[in-house]
Amino acid sequence: MNDYEWIKKILQKIKERKPLIHHLTNYVVMNDSANITLAIGALPIMALEEVELDDITNMASAVLLNIGTLKQDEINHMLVAGKYANFKNLPLILDPVGAGASKFRTRTAKNLLQNLKISIIKGNSFEIATLIDLPAEGIGVDATPSNKNYANIAKEAAKKYRAIVLVTGEKDFVSDGDKVFEIEGGSSLMSKVTGCGCMLGSIVASFAAIESDNLLMASLGASIFFKSVGKVAEQRSSLPGSFRNNLIDSAYLIANDEEKLNAIWREEK
Amino acid sequence: MNDYEWIKKILQKIKERKPLIHHLTNYVVMNDSANITLAIGALPIMALEEVELDDITNMASAVLLNIGTLKQDEINHMLVAGKYANFKNLPLILDPVGAGASKFRTRTAKNLLQNLKISIIKGNSFEIATLIDLPAEGIGVDATPSNKNYANIAKEAAKKYRAIVLVTGEKDFVSDGDKVFEIEGGSSLMSKVTGCGCMLGSIVASFAAIESDNLLMASLGASIFFKSVGKVAEQRSSLPGSFRNNLIDSAYLIANDEEKLNAIWREEK
Amino acid sequence: MNDYEWIKKILQKIKERKPLIHHLTNYVVMNDSANITLAIGALPIMALEEVELDDITNMASAVLLNIGTLKQDEINHMLVAGKYANFKNLPLILDPVGAGASKFRTRTAKNLLQNLKISIIKGNSFEIATLIDLPAEGIGVDATPSNKNYANIAKEAAKKYRAIVLVTGEKDFVSDGDKVFEIEGGSSLMSKVTGCGCMLGSIVASFAAIESDNLLMASLGASIFFKSVGKVAEQRSSLPGSFRNNLIDSAYLIANDEEKLNAIWREEK
Repeated sequence: MNDYEWIKKILQKIKERKPLIHHLTNYVVMNDSANITLAIGALPIMALEEVELDDITNMASAVLLNIGTLKQDEINHMLVAGKYANFKNLPLILDPVGAGASKFRTRTAKNLLQNLKISIIKGNSFEIATLIDLPAEGIGVDATPSNKNYANIAKEAAKKYRAIVLVTGEKDFVSDGDKVFEIEGGSSLMSKVTGCGCMLGSIVASFAAIESDNLLMASLGASIFFKSVGKVAEQRSSLPGSFRNNLIDSAYLIANDEEKLNAIWREEK
Repeated sequence: MNDYEWIKKILQKIKERKPLIHHLTNYVVMNDSANITLAIGALPIMALEEVELDDITNMASAVLLNIGTLKQDEINHMLVAGKYANFKNLPLILDPVGAGASKFRTRTAKNLLQNLKISIIKGNSFEIATLIDLPAEGIGVDATPSNKNYANIAKEAAKKYRAIVLVTGEKDFVSDGDKVFEIEGGSSLMSKVTGCGCMLGSIVASFAAIESDNLLMASLGASIFFKSVGKVAEQRSSLPGSFRNNLIDSAYLIANDEEKLNAIWREEK
Repeated sequence: MNDYEWIKKILQKIKERKPLIHHLTNYVVMNDSANITLAIGALPIMALEEVELDDITNMASAVLLNIGTLKQDEINHMLVAGKYANFKNLPLILDPVGAGASKFRTRTAKNLLQNLKISIIKGNSFEIATLIDLPAEGIGVDATPSNKNYANIAKEAAKKYRAIVLVTGEKDFVSDGDKVFEIEGGSSLMSKVTGCGCMLGSIVASFAAIESDNLLMASLGASIFFKSVGKVAEQRSSLPGSFRNNLIDSAYLIANDEEKLNAIWREEK
């Protein structure tokens, strides 16, 4: 099942159609998110003013909500952008950064999930476990879901929110609430560069913009693609400052030479 | 007319005088804008609080307004900064990012142009065409001016706003409403890195800080310089992540070894 | 006295304990600050919403306040975060970016110092001199303290605010109001990359998180470490764009191979 033809087709279409990806994302990663979006051939836009959301969403092919540095009085901005995306039937991706780390973020992530039709939720195991109220093990930064069956966490969250769920980590898990895929690859250096998860969010949104009728495959393809990007980047550098640039370089490289796709994936039983 | 002595003199003076460039710019590019400003020997500052604008403008040699992630309630901040710049007779540069892409941005760019004396307007062909109400061709992200005579767009906008206009693209065009210059060079990779246009804004402002009596030549010089930066950067890397750093490196390299200036320019008929 | 065993121990403990460093910092440097924190093995977080400050501070091991792009209405955010840090007895580091450059920043820095128990103040000689009301020489951007005895400035500021003071520059000076240490090393390229001082702030906070009972040695160690980082980075690149990445790379390199520590330091008479 490791045939990447369908991913190559998505990458080809991204380059042909140049979908506009509207990012409402955190300030730490804005630059890297824009650059990785450009690297694969899509177009990023970051509009922070509510009165222009109708015009921006009108041009966009997908909308990404990332709550990494969100403030209370900006939640409405995300709700408005999300409503427009829902009205236009655009893929709407949620990255619930820090859910579980503060009550505010947990509450905000759930608020967005309740009031919007989110197409894809992408987060690490602790964030996704928080969304389905799983108890945590450890405290604070070291907290992890007490349940280590991440495939199941992906599936349960997908069922609960009727969305595609992508759980990131050493292995990624993608589920539609029925099937679950497990994806291996990537690089341990990815945890040494801020915003790697956020960059994957941009890739998921770009894939979803093209494959809007099959968001499960869009999410799976994005995960496989980014795991491959990490692996190729690691071959080019072993230090995090260089690795960060090599992530962008490798994304560009693979988007233009898809033979480099190399992550390993399979459907879970 | 490809003698670069006058540009070398501007670059020398920037290094000697270290002009302070006040940036009111978007969050995506702040870091790159600061670093390219430092690379050519000028000093960047980004002050976001209105009550300190008098002190900051007092020290500044040029002010750059870039509306890339502007919010409604921050427009006043730009108006105040612009008023101070006008009062102090400092070069005031406007980068109308996204004019034409949303009514809010079009309106805001025109608002700034009506209420401030803008010295230099720098934007891509679609943004500048929007400012002179030219009809667009295509929609949304793919929109371009229906009129492809960019030299004329530069000239008309310069006339209308009594400002120097720099239209960026595969070729740049600089006009004072009378003469038009065409500048070739650069690199196609520049469209694969976010904020290249914004970085040029910082360079234009730095050149204008030195050559405040001849903003036409300042803008032309900045365009030639940045086209050369792009070309040198491309020789050092063919991938966008590395290219981004090489833009900063190449700006530093050329600012300290002006023999590397290599863009081609001529006056249009 | 150039034995680095104690610094190596701090670096080891950072990697083992992964302290969470809460950053309230400026938008220009957020990404670099996060990446240098990760490079040495600590964990960065940037939370901008007041209602989550209790949860975030609860997990944090140090809090860094950097006023580089602060707005009036965000001062309260810093006060609240600082109060929580004081209540939890966490190291609280202040980087008074631009104190002396505008009345607003001078006032704000002093306001924070009056209302919070700041553990460590880190700034350049002009910023620190401003905090102890020393007259300036020159104006605006070229202003420097008229008193060039930076060792004494460090000592006086430390006495006045009962804090550890780290004055950065070609040489760094660290004082607890009694002893003063002078640290040589680093690279002249550090002044060509935005946010180098801000990155040092993240390192100081990470060191202080581990060595909270001896903030003098934490600050001294952070200075020696970062001077070494600059020197190693310079050996790897002579241009500022590459140098910026090499700072992150070198921080990672030294944190994982402490034999590379090479700054020179001694106690002042």
